[in-house]
Amino acid sequence: MSNLNGSTADLRSVFLGVYSSLKSELLNDPAFEWTEGSRQWVERMLDYNVPGGKLNRGLSVIDSYNLLKDRKGLTEEEVFLASALGWCIEWLQAYFLVLDDIMDNSHTRRGQPCWFRVPKVGMIAVNDGILLRNHIPRILKKHFREKPYYVDLLDLFNEVEFQTASGQMIDLITTIEGEKDLTKYSLPLHRRIVQYKTAYYSFYLPVACALLMAGENLDKHVPVKDVLIDMGIYFQVQDDYLDCFGEPEKIGKIGTDIEDFKCSWLVVKALELCNEEQKKILHEHYGKDDPAHVAKVKAVYNELNLQGVFAEYESQSYERLTNAIEAHPSKAVQAVLKSFLGKIYKRQK
Amino acid sequence: MSNLNGSTADLRSVFLGVYSSLKSELLNDPAFEWTEGSRQWVERMLDYNVPGGKLNRGLSVIDSYNLLKDRKGLTEEEVFLASALGWCIEWLQAYFLVLDDIMDNSHTRRGQPCWFRVPKVGMIAVNDGILLRNHIPRILKKHFREKPYYVDLLDLFNEVEFQTASGQMIDLITTIEGEKDLTKYSLPLHRRIVQYKTAYYSFYLPVACALLMAGENLDKHVPVKDVLIDMGIYFQVQDDYLDCFGEPEKIGKIGTDIEDFKCSWLVVKALELCNEEQKKILHEHYGKDDPAHVAKVKAVYNELNLQGVFAEYESQSYERLTNAIEAHPSKAVQAVLKSFLGKIYKRQK
Repeated sequence: MSNLNGSTADLRSVFLGVYSSLKSELLNDPAFEWTEGSRQWVERMLDYNVPGGKLNRGLSVIDSYNLLKDRKGLTEEEVFLASALGWCIEWLQAYFLVLDDIMDNSHTRRGQPCWFRVPKVGMIAVNDGILLRNHIPRILKKHFREKPYYVDLLDLFNEVEFQTASGQMIDLITTIEGEKDLTKYSLPLHRRIVQYKTAYYSFYLPVACALLMAGENLDKHVPVKDVLIDMGIYFQVQDDYLDCFGEPEKIGKIGTDIEDFKCSWLVVKALELCNEEQKKILHEHYGKDDPAHVAKVKAVYNELNLQGVFAEYESQSYERLTNAIEAHPSKAVQAVLKSFLGKIYKRQK
Repeated sequence: MSNLNGSTADLRSVFLGVYSSLKSELLNDPAFEWTEGSRQWVERMLDYNVPGGKLNRGLSVIDSYNLLKDRKGLTEEEVFLASALGWCIEWLQAYFLVLDDIMDNSHTRRGQPCWFRVPKVGMIAVNDGILLRNHIPRILKKHFREKPYYVDLLDLFNEVEFQTASGQMIDLITTIEGEKDLTKYSLPLHRRIVQYKTAYYSFYLPVACALLMAGENLDKHVPVKDVLIDMGIYFQVQDDYLDCFGEPEKIGKIGTDIEDFKCSWLVVKALELCNEEQKKILHEHYGKDDPAHVAKVKAVYNELNLQGVFAEYESQSYERLTNAIEAHPSKAVQAVLKSFLGKIYKRQK
């Protein structure tokens, strides 16, 4: 039995211990002839980009697997394997973030300069992103090659990555520089972007990993997938809301979605609810990096009572998700889904 | 029976026909909700980046499979499947090239501007590279999911991509801007870079695909892999040689390895053979984008008779490779390997 029944701090440190093991395996992967220089490079790159986030996605694989096993307690090996899958998701996230920061020309990430802005890294970060992505099948092969669900794991990660990159594509091509055109923004477009870009890898993937480990056939769990995707969309709407109305001290950053011309739920909802005059204001002031313009946009958001509209959206989402969860025949699966929902409902950060 | 027994022009047009089928499947992949804009974007991106090369790697899967089947003629389905695997390699190559061009800040590729330099593309090319990479498992899943060798195909593509990205990494970190230091260049480093960056995906991968289709276990074909890797290294040495001593009309470009401070076989060999005075000249003039500097380097190459040294290397490689090939127990495998060697021996382009 593992110390999984202990505190969250324990779980986190167990999880971080698995990171060290996986890193050391990767740095000695026999498929490559390592030099000291390349080993040092990859180690620094991993430590800089992989373990520095909140680790929610990764940790939730262990949580979910534990709930699916009906809290009977996990063996050391089960904890290790669930952690390894959790880390694969964190590696996937790191890969996306390293490359997204290059595409968005961002400056900081998780409180430090973006990897490509670190001296001597620059565009080598593109290849580092690729390496991060390539580490996932290395980890899977080393630890899951003999499992009956190995091929399903490969298919799962491949499909989810494809969906994420496709979501990123529609986000990128609707926001092409020099074509700031609000008429393209709509609720269906917003839903599509967040569903593909965020929901699959952040919500569906951790649970799907846990289900595979538990011997389940994913084709039989389409309702679970649907609930998780719905939850992922709700999560991203919260994110959009907090970017404007959250407390910077709590969310850890000052939102710039208005300045950045983001296809945010708020602007999409505002466009849906506004009159002609307000629409003119939005078109004129959205996407300009200047506090006066931002204030005009926020004034329209307030006139339209978007805080109230969001509160209504949030309670409706909660009810819909709860009903869907309770319709599921398995109490263990219900527990997994409720755990996810409980972590995000009315979150302020 | 297919028209594979016809001319090379036939084979090429059959192969290009398969490209059209694969493209149309990808543009209707049910794992994503397509918009007209995203479908158009991906179609243009594919047509721009995938089919415009020499297609040698892709075509060689069909060739190799045909030889392994002992020229009994392939069914339509076999031609389609071998072509699909061939295209997966071309997709892999396109993915590497799109991202390499960004990292190297290149201008042209295959006689047209690099994809990231096309108006409105820019850094979206990073995500396009990722999409290209993601298309490979989509193609494999659609056409090979039920084959007994499906999981081996996934493992193969994953391992080869990992090796290529690792080779690219040592190339990138030994040539970090502002650290132009010739003392780092040596024959073992050169061998390692070209083996990992080029040989696995260009030489081993096509044959490994054909072997899997033919029902072979790759673990039992390590000698075949070794010969192909050796051949891939020889191929890259030729490439380095032709960059300096080839005819621009034949190779289709004017080489700039000296200006670009590349870890070329020529400079590595020169460093090995030179005296102190010549070494000083190389250190002073290598990696400078100016014809006068380039001429100084070439003068040393000529003093050291690198053309003769290369000719000797080429004939020794040929003999070594031929001996290794003839030591193989299977005539069919010999035919595959000899076909590869025949295509590259003493090539001028």
